[in-house]
Amino acid sequence: MKMFEPLNVGTMVIPNRIMVPAMVTRLSGEDGFVNQDIIDRYVRYAQGGVGLIVVEAMAVHHAKSGPLLRISDDKFIPGLADLARRIHDTSASRVVPQIIHFLKIAKSGWRQTVDMLAREDIEQIVEQFGDAVARARAAGFDGAELHSAHAYTLASFMSRTNPRKDDYGGDTLEGRLRLIGRIMENIRRKAGDDFPVGVRYNADEFIRGGYTVTDAKAIGLRLAEIGAAYLSLSVGGKFEDAVHSPGQVPYPYTGYSGDRCMPGDWYPPVTHAHYGAEIKAYVRARGHRTPVAATGKISEPDDAERLVASGEVDIVGIARGLLADPDWPNKVRAGERDRIIRCDYCNVCKHLDGTHMRVICTLWPQGSLQAPPDDRATAAPQWASAAAGLAATVQNGSILLKWSKAPGAARYDIHRCDDLGNVSFVDAVKVTRWEDKDVLGGRRYRYYVRAYAATGAGGAPSNTVSVDLPAPSYLPRVSAAETAAP
Amino acid sequence: MKMFEPLNVGTMVIPNRIMVPAMVTRLSGEDGFVNQDIIDRYVRYAQGGVGLIVVEAMAVHHAKSGPLLRISDDKFIPGLADLARRIHDTSASRVVPQIIHFLKIAKSGWRQTVDMLAREDIEQIVEQFGDAVARARAAGFDGAELHSAHAYTLASFMSRTNPRKDDYGGDTLEGRLRLIGRIMENIRRKAGDDFPVGVRYNADEFIRGGYTVTDAKAIGLRLAEIGAAYLSLSVGGKFEDAVHSPGQVPYPYTGYSGDRCMPGDWYPPVTHAHYGAEIKAYVRARGHRTPVAATGKISEPDDAERLVASGEVDIVGIARGLLADPDWPNKVRAGERDRIIRCDYCNVCKHLDGTHMRVICTLWPQGSLQAPPDDRATAAPQWASAAAGLAATVQNGSILLKWSKAPGAARYDIHRCDDLGNVSFVDAVKVTRWEDKDVLGGRRYRYYVRAYAATGAGGAPSNTVSVDLPAPSYLPRVSAAETAAP
Repeated sequence: MKMFEPLNVGTMVIPNRIMVPAMVTRLSGEDGFVNQDIIDRYVRYAQGGVGLIVVEAMAVHHAKSGPLLRISDDKFIPGLADLARRIHDTSASRVVPQIIHFLKIAKSGWRQTVDMLAREDIEQIVEQFGDAVARARAAGFDGAELHSAHAYTLASFMSRTNPRKDDYGGDTLEGRLRLIGRIMENIRRKAGDDFPVGVRYNADEFIRGGYTVTDAKAIGLRLAEIGAAYLSLSVGGKFEDAVHSPGQVPYPYTGYSGDRCMPGDWYPPVTHAHYGAEIKAYVRARGHRTPVAATGKISEPDDAERLVASGEVDIVGIARGLLADPDWPNKVRAGERDRIIRCDYCNVCKHLDGTHMRVICTLWPQGSLQAPPDDRATAAPQWASAAAGLAATVQNGSILLKWSKAPGAARYDIHRCDDLGNVSFVDAVKVTRWEDKDVLGGRRYRYYVRAYAATGAGGAPSNTVSVDLPAPSYLPRVSAAETAAP
Repeated sequence: MKMFEPLNVGTMVIPNRIMVPAMVTRLSGEDGFVNQDIIDRYVRYAQGGVGLIVVEAMAVHHAKSGPLLRISDDKFIPGLADLARRIHDTSASRVVPQIIHFLKIAKSGWRQTVDMLAREDIEQIVEQFGDAVARARAAGFDGAELHSAHAYTLASFMSRTNPRKDDYGGDTLEGRLRLIGRIMENIRRKAGDDFPVGVRYNADEFIRGGYTVTDAKAIGLRLAEIGAAYLSLSVGGKFEDAVHSPGQVPYPYTGYSGDRCMPGDWYPPVTHAHYGAEIKAYVRARGHRTPVAATGKISEPDDAERLVASGEVDIVGIARGLLADPDWPNKVRAGERDRIIRCDYCNVCKHLDGTHMRVICTLWPQGSLQAPPDDRATAAPQWASAAAGLAATVQNGSILLKWSKAPGAARYDIHRCDDLGNVSFVDAVKVTRWEDKDVLGGRRYRYYVRAYAATGAGGAPSNTVSVDLPAPSYLPRVSAAETAAP
């Protein structure tokens, strides 16, 4: 499969085109140092065979925040070097840290905005990014990534809502791009022009007055021109529409733009990859071959392969899907898709991040701080246990499924066959009941359930239940549309 | 061209596939009666040759509001009948009224929500819609359209945020669809099942927790099943994210969902038509041939034709483009695209609507309440006047254009040729200067300007100016990406 072919990313070669984008783990302390939990988390991705690991955002400065890694002083280099070394010792996965600057924010809801920065502050930020990337190189990372997405300083300069009146804003695209340009220039000087530095930025801000893909294409071109090793696309995640809970520091993923940033189960799969395709085409047409990475509810192997094989984008970023199962790459490559622990986009991980709690996946065994080890080598390929006695009850507007507990089951995957016969994975649960609230009366639905052990080994499918949902009384016997001539 | 072929829409035949969607004019009084200004506005669309005219929303009830048409009593029928007759006397355009129910809202920001409605209130709404559509038929309209989009009652029931706990909500899709189902059933009873009733609804709510195209596909299927004559898609326009100005009634187009609903000049063209294609494919795959109309920054003839000829959608809805130039259909059909008065998506019309002022287009002659008459029959095909002396000044991050006034010019269209040689219309202005703030240093841009008389007749293009915008100092001489091997 194309996604398992290596790819040149600047001077780095990633062994395959699957990326785990930066995800905050909240495993670090407030001291900013790498600890064993952090190492375990990222080594686990390396074990799973992902091509590129982007380590969660680490700050270029010392500003107060919750649990967060730092790269703001040479004292952090040994810990970071240990992290990089441990990953390199594990597999061929390449690893880069995501590097961030953020502005001040208070529990009152007050937040510093880019127009409050003096020009000296901007010069300091330029230097801080250069120093941070030099430290990333010293620590043995394969490259670095600048966080210019969501609610943070670089993104706020790029934003169409940038309120500065000087040449770092001034209501012009060129002004909004000046800071990232100066930073990349300084990074070349301080870390060398052969060290691959990618940029993550928003393809669409998804806020009132925010920029759309129209600007994102031009931004992508400029990033290619200033030597970005890759473009990693995200969307939304802004403070402008964040919901402020009194007494809490605003969290930029609580508003609509936060919904878009980490789209939940009510969003279609592969929600935002079309932006990547549009941006890549625009940048390519102007002579740049900078690889483009797309993210956003990509987790079905067929979707990932299609995106890469068609050339729409070069890299697929899988965040929550790899949190649920770091072995996704190895399992797909080995033809063991049925063993994947599939993310159901319940977004408990997002909630844990927002409340500064250690980020885990609810599909992991109870109490685990890390994904369980892949036991392919030792476990029987087929686990014996199966959910049985699946039965459906029609409720008012929904279908309730219940089944018997399978001995030793850690979770159950629910599969639905729709009215056209398309089977899809619709949810994963730890209990033995599930309600389908998204069905239409007058149609037939079929379901089966599979039990999975904590190791990922799956049992046989349960019996299948078929439900003919009664049509609501107001439905015409034969609709006008069906009787109309073509 | 395919867009000029007739189309069966229920029992109605529309002469071509161009629709003017409902746009509030604020030309009516608070009394709700049709007046001469209203008639003039819609007859003007009929003169322009559009296939389907959707008359602005008229209320099924008497609830207090700003200037708004009413269809809530038989006393409104004579005025509505006069409007329908005048349109039919003008051209083959078909005409349907958009029919709306809205909940109470106060200047304090308080608003009634669907969970505050008693079941008797719901029964009353069901009856009111049936009576209103019966009146539309009695008035001689060719059909009717239910307003189930944006911030209004039917959309709020359909919404994923519907908070009702009973069978008109209950957190199930079926519950959310119950009101529209019962209304359509009652309409069939009161207005006959051969009277075409389309439904306008949101393809995406664009609010936190709102529904996405996933639900919109299922909603479209149900609407087809209950006999909707067509599906007209919009997006956003919700109260949930509206910006409340103290002392003013909230306006549901002031938040991010309002940006999406009437996307401004910073949005890409044809912003939302892909939703229409997805919904149409879903409904067709299940045996329904219900025509689907897409809207949202469709105004280039090639875009409109592509959407219809490819079958992605069946009807193109052009709102602001037809407000700017109601003769768009006739001009495109006659091969006179250069005479189109092109909407530049400045959204002054949206602002006028929001402040309850009479909605006009700023590209019309000063002081006009209606688009100027099409003078194709009398005016010289080429108007003599031309803008001249076009000159460009490079500013900090932008390009300033100035030119000499063309005698008698009503407006100037600015055309830009980008770095790849693609020419596009970028703005329309009434003054003789324009600033391009969306340019990238290090690239070449060319511009020309055309002056237009108030009649729409255009002068010769001005001289062309070519600008080599200096690259910012931080740009590397040769970027890494350009030197990389493929």
